[in-house]
Amino acid sequence: MEKLKVSIIGATGYTGKELVKILINHPKVELIYLTSSTYKGKNIDEVFPEFINKLDKKLIDFNLNAVSQDSDLVFTALPHTVSMDVVPELLKKGVKVIDLSADYRIKDPAVYQEWYKKEHNQISKGLLSEAIYGLPEIYSDKIKDASLVANPGCYPTSVILGIAPLLEHQFVEPEGIIIDSKSGATGAGRELSLGFHFPECNENFKAYKVVKHNHIPEIEQELSSIYFSEDNNDNEYQNSEIKISFTPHLLPINRGILSTCYLTLKESKEEKEILEVYQKFYQNAPFVRIFKPPSSPEVKFTTGTNYCDIGFTIDERVGNIKVISVIDNLLKGAAGQAVQNMNIMSGFSETCGLV
Amino acid sequence: MEKLKVSIIGATGYTGKELVKILINHPKVELIYLTSSTYKGKNIDEVFPEFINKLDKKLIDFNLNAVSQDSDLVFTALPHTVSMDVVPELLKKGVKVIDLSADYRIKDPAVYQEWYKKEHNQISKGLLSEAIYGLPEIYSDKIKDASLVANPGCYPTSVILGIAPLLEHQFVEPEGIIIDSKSGATGAGRELSLGFHFPECNENFKAYKVVKHNHIPEIEQELSSIYFSEDNNDNEYQNSEIKISFTPHLLPINRGILSTCYLTLKESKEEKEILEVYQKFYQNAPFVRIFKPPSSPEVKFTTGTNYCDIGFTIDERVGNIKVISVIDNLLKGAAGQAVQNMNIMSGFSETCGLV
Amino acid sequence: MEKLKVSIIGATGYTGKELVKILINHPKVELIYLTSSTYKGKNIDEVFPEFINKLDKKLIDFNLNAVSQDSDLVFTALPHTVSMDVVPELLKKGVKVIDLSADYRIKDPAVYQEWYKKEHNQISKGLLSEAIYGLPEIYSDKIKDASLVANPGCYPTSVILGIAPLLEHQFVEPEGIIIDSKSGATGAGRELSLGFHFPECNENFKAYKVVKHNHIPEIEQELSSIYFSEDNNDNEYQNSEIKISFTPHLLPINRGILSTCYLTLKESKEEKEILEVYQKFYQNAPFVRIFKPPSSPEVKFTTGTNYCDIGFTIDERVGNIKVISVIDNLLKGAAGQAVQNMNIMSGFSETCGLV
Amino acid sequence: MEKLKVSIIGATGYTGKELVKILINHPKVELIYLTSSTYKGKNIDEVFPEFINKLDKKLIDFNLNAVSQDSDLVFTALPHTVSMDVVPELLKKGVKVIDLSADYRIKDPAVYQEWYKKEHNQISKGLLSEAIYGLPEIYSDKIKDASLVANPGCYPTSVILGIAPLLEHQFVEPEGIIIDSKSGATGAGRELSLGFHFPECNENFKAYKVVKHNHIPEIEQELSSIYFSEDNNDNEYQNSEIKISFTPHLLPINRGILSTCYLTLKESKEEKEILEVYQKFYQNAPFVRIFKPPSSPEVKFTTGTNYCDIGFTIDERVGNIKVISVIDNLLKGAAGQAVQNMNIMSGFSETCGLV
Repeated sequence: MEKLKVSIIGATGYTGKELVKILINHPKVELIYLTSSTYKGKNIDEVFPEFINKLDKKLIDFNLNAVSQDSDLVFTALPHTVSMDVVPELLKKGVKVIDLSADYRIKDPAVYQEWYKKEHNQISKGLLSEAIYGLPEIYSDKIKDASLVANPGCYPTSVILGIAPLLEHQFVEPEGIIIDSKSGATGAGRELSLGFHFPECNENFKAYKVVKHNHIPEIEQELSSIYFSEDNNDNEYQNSEIKISFTPHLLPINRGILSTCYLTLKESKEEKEILEVYQKFYQNAPFVRIFKPPSSPEVKFTTGTNYCDIGFTIDERVGNIKVISVIDNLLKGAAGQAVQNMNIMSGFSETCGLV
Repeated sequence: MEKLKVSIIGATGYTGKELVKILINHPKVELIYLTSSTYKGKNIDEVFPEFINKLDKKLIDFNLNAVSQDSDLVFTALPHTVSMDVVPELLKKGVKVIDLSADYRIKDPAVYQEWYKKEHNQISKGLLSEAIYGLPEIYSDKIKDASLVANPGCYPTSVILGIAPLLEHQFVEPEGIIIDSKSGATGAGRELSLGFHFPECNENFKAYKVVKHNHIPEIEQELSSIYFSEDNNDNEYQNSEIKISFTPHLLPINRGILSTCYLTLKESKEEKEILEVYQKFYQNAPFVRIFKPPSSPEVKFTTGTNYCDIGFTIDERVGNIKVISVIDNLLKGAAGQAVQNMNIMSGFSETCGLV
Repeated sequence: MEKLKVSIIGATGYTGKELVKILINHPKVELIYLTSSTYKGKNIDEVFPEFINKLDKKLIDFNLNAVSQDSDLVFTALPHTVSMDVVPELLKKGVKVIDLSADYRIKDPAVYQEWYKKEHNQISKGLLSEAIYGLPEIYSDKIKDASLVANPGCYPTSVILGIAPLLEHQFVEPEGIIIDSKSGATGAGRELSLGFHFPECNENFKAYKVVKHNHIPEIEQELSSIYFSEDNNDNEYQNSEIKISFTPHLLPINRGILSTCYLTLKESKEEKEILEVYQKFYQNAPFVRIFKPPSSPEVKFTTGTNYCDIGFTIDERVGNIKVISVIDNLLKGAAGQAVQNMNIMSGFSETCGLV
Repeated sequence: MEKLKVSIIGATGYTGKELVKILINHPKVELIYLTSSTYKGKNIDEVFPEFINKLDKKLIDFNLNAVSQDSDLVFTALPHTVSMDVVPELLKKGVKVIDLSADYRIKDPAVYQEWYKKEHNQISKGLLSEAIYGLPEIYSDKIKDASLVANPGCYPTSVILGIAPLLEHQFVEPEGIIIDSKSGATGAGRELSLGFHFPECNENFKAYKVVKHNHIPEIEQELSSIYFSEDNNDNEYQNSEIKISFTPHLLPINRGILSTCYLTLKESKEEKEILEVYQKFYQNAPFVRIFKPPSSPEVKFTTGTNYCDIGFTIDERVGNIKVISVIDNLLKGAAGQAVQNMNIMSGFSETCGLV
């Protein structure tokens, strides 16, 4: 069988590197082009000596014609607000695109503009309705036939998977949801800044962007869509109203996100009922593992894997439920999920090439 | 002037070690006895080579008569439920005691028994009313004249200092308070266990004791006392009703606690008003530093110091206020605060020997 | 094709866990028994939640008959001096054994006894001559036909691979060899001890066993064998005389060994000549990568892989050559190399199941 | 008594920050000016929130007249090759200078130029003979009366103190000395670079500048001066011939240097004799601690202190002696030693303000 021809735009960030690492060993993929504006002309193994003996490929500057002509599918691993200049061109040339930026995640262009301070042009705006939010545990049916998948953010993946079953069943109040998330340092990328200089970050811990992290609208959009879905009531999409209180923190580790989510139970529930709801929701999801209380997920259980591990605890003293959701931010939170989407879009087994 | 004669019961845990470190350089203290059941007979610098050339003192087994006869003040740095066997004896001999365990923090013996699974005997129970909760920023007047100070827990110190001003002014609802705390590994002490074996703890992050951490009753007691104080309304102490949702997490760093506290504002407030309330509340507190938004405290700013750093953010989107409170768990969260209490009890400057 | 039936004796140490992790994904292996005296009766995923959804297998107590009857090949991942009680029994039953302890690495039983403080019994002693030292880059011809492979130690693997080409070509003096090695904390295993308690090990660095680390005789045996081989001169094996100065250090990281080796050049050499000698020596070795000066290997390039990365620098000012050799101590230094040996013994591709 | 007026040129690097931290609590010093070209105009506590409530001082651009007029002594914490443009001006104005760069450490201007790629001008060159190498354990007599002290490098401090007694007594060969050093990340300063980006440095370990680290000439100059001193033989200074093999490595920790030094014993020595020689050599050195074998120093014992901890082991199998020498690179390796020099120059107790 012929292999799927795949290129990566932006191959030398942490997400790009992780994509390369997965795709090298993917049995159904042939890597075509790796682009990098910073390192063009160098070999990938000069930038990442990890690839010596594994991949001998030159990094090139992005070239629309070459890339679109020789690739079946392209991963765009570019910064937010940059992707939207490239993605429409690729689609026009008939290439499938999995975009790892935020540019096509937010359905409402006004909301996007408010949080990302840039406006979609007309063509780009037109793509918003056909872009599929690439969370396979929820949207696999749509992903299957998509040309453009907007790969979810790392925090949103951990949060949405963590609490979706509770919202779908309307076990919890849609108000007062609190999300306290902690991420390893690769989440901020490979760009240098003082806060990520080793002696500044090591043996430290802090909150950042305490009110306005731009993953908030993405989380709220999806949670609202689940809670206020047609199955649940008559409200239409635009009536979504869930507003969360979200605080991201920086962990002095390389990889991993742990989100602690606090939700108010509408009425008292048995642990067993909650457990069944989670197990049923994820019965066909190969990458979600539910922990039975009192066992609880830890960051290291997911490191290097595409799993999302979820645990929960009912706190009867105060009437809430705490959900702890853990992922590897570079895998289920980025490159792994992107490959999972590619597998679904290409008719491969969902787990192919992933661990 | 004659120096204060001080002994430490339990000098070879992390808290005991830190007490020794501070007291060696304290200009008004003479260290008399250091006891250790594990290392008795050894010199302190054999256990902690850090003390070579700094302190030449043999560790002894605890001896009530010797200790009480030769000491003016004793720090008991023993495990919970063990302290209560020693503290009454010391007090009976006329020695002042600063107890770093939880045994005399909880006013209600039934609550203590519920959470710590041990009952106070009659004499010990009798001490509960005279024991002063050693949080100098709130109780310095009582600490001054106390014979027995119950030194606060590390998590409670960060939480209570962090949100006391909001509760005193009743700016926030007493219900629905959520505390998401993260602590470095020294918080669990020097006892070996698999979870703290280096390769298990390093590059990891997890929640633990998700519902029932035994610092909860201590936090609730103090928050209730502030919110429902006589100045605030007619309720008496026993009517306290604040219940918090508290989740501790383990950070892969040595020292430091960061507590992220979420509270619902009763009505919209200006940042400026909140800031003034905090500044006034702590105007005479040398070890509390208020960060003006958007600046925010980080663990490393307090590492090695006795400071509690507090920042806050009003999240108008959801009507809550987030407070971030940071301490070094071994200093303001244990040994430093204990010395601060000693200074107040002994008429020294509150900051003497502390940084 | 039928799969190779493999069991692991001692599956719950770090090496055993890593073996399980590799073999789960190995296309030509079926895992039969996992034994653990500590955790028998539990499921492997209760001990290591990483294996949830990946491997559903109960840990059993070691049972010679069952294991030997149902397995083609057994990995013994037991402590030194314990393996020798099990290995001969397994071999007698006709099972192939890859022993990850030191028990069959040292050819001379007197040397073994001197360093490991235990004597081989007669049967065990008899196996020493047929045991093959499992360093495939040097002994693959013998490994192919071996029934018992003594899998090398982690430090020895890094050192021997690092300097073998220089010794074979006798470019360097056999005297005055200095090896300064640094290892991550998993090298010491999963047994609890104060030195590996997180707060003691984190942000620290130290040398240990400064003169008498028991990997020394293994390194000296192999270096001597290379330098004084028949191809090189008339000396017989027993005349080997290389004595090294070896200092291991403990790095506050989970995985990885970096050995810095200092050797005196007999005469001045060009970088190019050295490079060619290394490249030729390892031309058929898929897991050795030679770094061309001034590029130099780093621990992270090998983390999670079975590679040994080697760099060198000629220091003309003092007439010596420095060789830096890096491995992942749990993979090329233990479980990865063991699987590499299994592949060779079983006629599989040498790299099968390894990255 | 009037306090010593002190300014710091370059106060916002790690060394400058550490100087400020020490001097704030120094009882005999008044801090006058803190300069910073990067942060001029800001308050020091905006750059380092650690200083909130501790020091309220504005960072200024360097101003020769103001600084020299109002200061008795100036610390220059500037990069190599930059200091030489400032130091002569300050001295001309009659201010004492402790220079923390390498510019006045190397006596021979040709050697300086070879390693640092810049030439001293005539005035600067003239200062080389009057600059005193600021290692108080060896040169305190000269430091007492010095106007210009060249504060030693971090690696050189650990190495020279570690092996000076062996060289002075000529117990070891002057040839074949091997120094394998490991340093925490603050050693490289606060300048951003990819190698110190947290995810690149964390969980990693590597050698760097494998042959040509510019601390080599400084180490060789001082070792030669000790070994070939007039007390030892007739050779004059310029006949120094010691050449070392030096390899620095980067530890993923914030602070600390551990140097493992390998020297060949001229003849077999008893441990006791070596111990006595060390103890005598450092009998008046308050900041050197000798560890009696088999006890051995660890990085953490010195972290946050001005100590240099030294241990040694005789390896009779190969006839060499290993010395392990540990310091905190920012204290005994930089700012602490600088203050120790200031104390000596000013007639204060050598340990004043230091721990």
